[in-house]
Amino acid sequence: MGAHIGYRDLPGFGRRFIDYDPQELAAEVTYQLGALEALARSAGTRIRYVKPHGGMYNTIVHHKDQAHAVIDAIGEYDETLPVLLLPGGYALDYARRQGLRGVSEAFADRAYNPDGTLVSRREPGAVIEDTGRVVENMLRLAQDGVMIAHDGTRIEAGAESICTHGDTAGAAQMAATLRAALEDAGVQIRSFVDV
Amino acid sequence: MGAHIGYRDLPGFGRRFIDYDPQELAAEVTYQLGALEALARSAGTRIRYVKPHGGMYNTIVHHKDQAHAVIDAIGEYDETLPVLLLPGGYALDYARRQGLRGVSEAFADRAYNPDGTLVSRREPGAVIEDTGRVVENMLRLAQDGVMIAHDGTRIEAGAESICTHGDTAGAAQMAATLRAALEDAGVQIRSFVDV
Amino acid sequence: MGAHIGYRDLPGFGRRFIDYDPQELAAEVTYQLGALEALARSAGTRIRYVKPHGGMYNTIVHHKDQAHAVIDAIGEYDETLPVLLLPGGYALDYARRQGLRGVSEAFADRAYNPDGTLVSRREPGAVIEDTGRVVENMLRLAQDGVMIAHDGTRIEAGAESICTHGDTAGAAQMAATLRAALEDAGVQIRSFVDV
Amino acid sequence: MGAHIGYRDLPGFGRRFIDYDPQELAAEVTYQLGALEALARSAGTRIRYVKPHGGMYNTIVHHKDQAHAVIDAIGEYDETLPVLLLPGGYALDYARRQGLRGVSEAFADRAYNPDGTLVSRREPGAVIEDTGRVVENMLRLAQDGVMIAHDGTRIEAGAESICTHGDTAGAAQMAATLRAALEDAGVQIRSFVDV
Repeated sequence: MGAHIGYRDLPGFGRRFIDYDPQELAAEVTYQLGALEALARSAGTRIRYVKPHGGMYNTIVHHKDQAHAVIDAIGEYDETLPVLLLPGGYALDYARRQGLRGVSEAFADRAYNPDGTLVSRREPGAVIEDTGRVVENMLRLAQDGVMIAHDGTRIEAGAESICTHGDTAGAAQMAATLRAALEDAGVQIRSFVDV
Repeated sequence: MGAHIGYRDLPGFGRRFIDYDPQELAAEVTYQLGALEALARSAGTRIRYVKPHGGMYNTIVHHKDQAHAVIDAIGEYDETLPVLLLPGGYALDYARRQGLRGVSEAFADRAYNPDGTLVSRREPGAVIEDTGRVVENMLRLAQDGVMIAHDGTRIEAGAESICTHGDTAGAAQMAATLRAALEDAGVQIRSFVDV
Repeated sequence: MGAHIGYRDLPGFGRRFIDYDPQELAAEVTYQLGALEALARSAGTRIRYVKPHGGMYNTIVHHKDQAHAVIDAIGEYDETLPVLLLPGGYALDYARRQGLRGVSEAFADRAYNPDGTLVSRREPGAVIEDTGRVVENMLRLAQDGVMIAHDGTRIEAGAESICTHGDTAGAAQMAATLRAALEDAGVQIRSFVDV
Repeated sequence: MGAHIGYRDLPGFGRRFIDYDPQELAAEVTYQLGALEALARSAGTRIRYVKPHGGMYNTIVHHKDQAHAVIDAIGEYDETLPVLLLPGGYALDYARRQGLRGVSEAFADRAYNPDGTLVSRREPGAVIEDTGRVVENMLRLAQDGVMIAHDGTRIEAGAESICTHGDTAGAAQMAATLRAALEDAGVQIRSFVDV
């Protein structure tokens, strides 16, 4: 189980940038980690990794004050928790410099900009629902360490984990198909968490 | 620092009864304890006691399913946490039977019904703002173990702690005056928590 | 378009009883009607009827103070709005006495208690997902004016409208099947709103 | 009574920028105007002007998409409602071009940047609590049409209304003192709304 921390923004599903005061953002992260940890423990498990959500995730790719607030709060809470982050972004670099285990991640069901960021959900074509394309892209990533941006640019970006969004149509089936395709191609899948 | 757990009801300030499903109520308690504990630890301290708030507090005086949910969730989270509860109520009795440290509590700034429950805030006279009456009532409680209900009934109800509400007018001054009056009368005040 | 007014209780999906102060409940109703009306007008339409939701709906079947608050607020907002309510309940009777157009309603996908109230969603069997049973029950209602409670009791309760819940599995298909079955049986369906 | 519309952001008190989708922002404005109008009418009055709050107010000074969304939603709701806005900003200009009555406004208790925008509340000195300075600044504004920025820059910015924030310490007293000082100096005060 991972902690999918995010902005406190139910009406926006946490997907909009909010100009948090960094101290309040750090407190928000601590609050969410603590709340989930208590629920996890009452169910006999615990938080094993952290992945920021939506607006928070995309913002800390470039927004240094928010990246510091989020990463420092995670590190202060538990410095052994792996954190899933976008390759090439500021947060991943900062997390590693702070001694955290930063895990680079690719998005199977999202289009990329040439700079390796995700195409905004407000743009057409931001979400990829074609499983064939998803499989093709992820095989290329796993075998060559390359993503292709929406304009054809090659992005050299290895990734240790692949995300499909639970609210993308057919996400569970897409994940199963993708896993099978990767295994068929001889890609070995294992957890980034020591279980 | 104590955890003032309550219903998830911002517009009602947690003061209205909500007919929670007991499992959801237990999860709510666990969530709040975990969130606050994480914030407390990031500030170098920890939760030292628990006191249910408003609607939750008054409901578990008599509502067995909610009392079980709240007390069991606290006990499962940390069985050493003292819990402030109304004397004579079901929750205090149940907490003690479950092996928790139930701490009986009196309300300096609230009128009482003859059965030892609090007069509802929707009734006139529910909140006592007259410091003279507050001091008189609490001295009687500390010295004789007795509260006087709004209709004159004597309630035999010892209490180990006294509450003044932060949103009662002049609450901080009332608490200081009350403490001084108790000490002047030779009442020895000490924490119910081992610090 | 109808206004599906309800308690302000997102985490409980509005399905739990909340012990509102009646004045605050009336204000809540007014607020929701006004907000929806403005959105409706910006889309070129308007509110054509009102149906209370979940906890509010079931509470005002018997809770007089809340029934008065809800019905009076609707009447003050627009006394020509039809209001969908449970047959045999206090709110429907009160609405009609206040001169509102109370529309009696049956629930296709819910089990009934012998007194004509709905079996609580916390009880097993509260939601009926078997379209065959739904059709059978609603044909009986349309033709004989009778519902059968979960224990076999006959409830004499005519209804002018039939509800299927949008979050019941297969609700849209159930509604289509039910409509076809009613029409096949010669039941004439028309709107309770003058369009 | 005015409608103080704002972002849906209770934890941030509406004071933080949120990157709303413009269509959702317009719907938010419509929703709030409708809700307040219904409450106002139930109290025998109606909305007489609109003033955006906090983050929304400051954002539409320069953010064209959000300015269009907010102003167009107000105009569509009721094109006769005056709208209080910051002089020199995009929203005021756009509102006037759309045929709305834009009312320029000065902030008695806030420091100004040289470009006529408000110093952010995250900066020291953003809020002015010294009534003497407040009176001096507002007399200069009323008599000379000039504000002085925190660095001494003169800002030529007439204003038709003056704001003191209800959560600035001593706001009510500040407003009374300021009003008296303006009247003593011969400034004639009247409503920008036809009452």
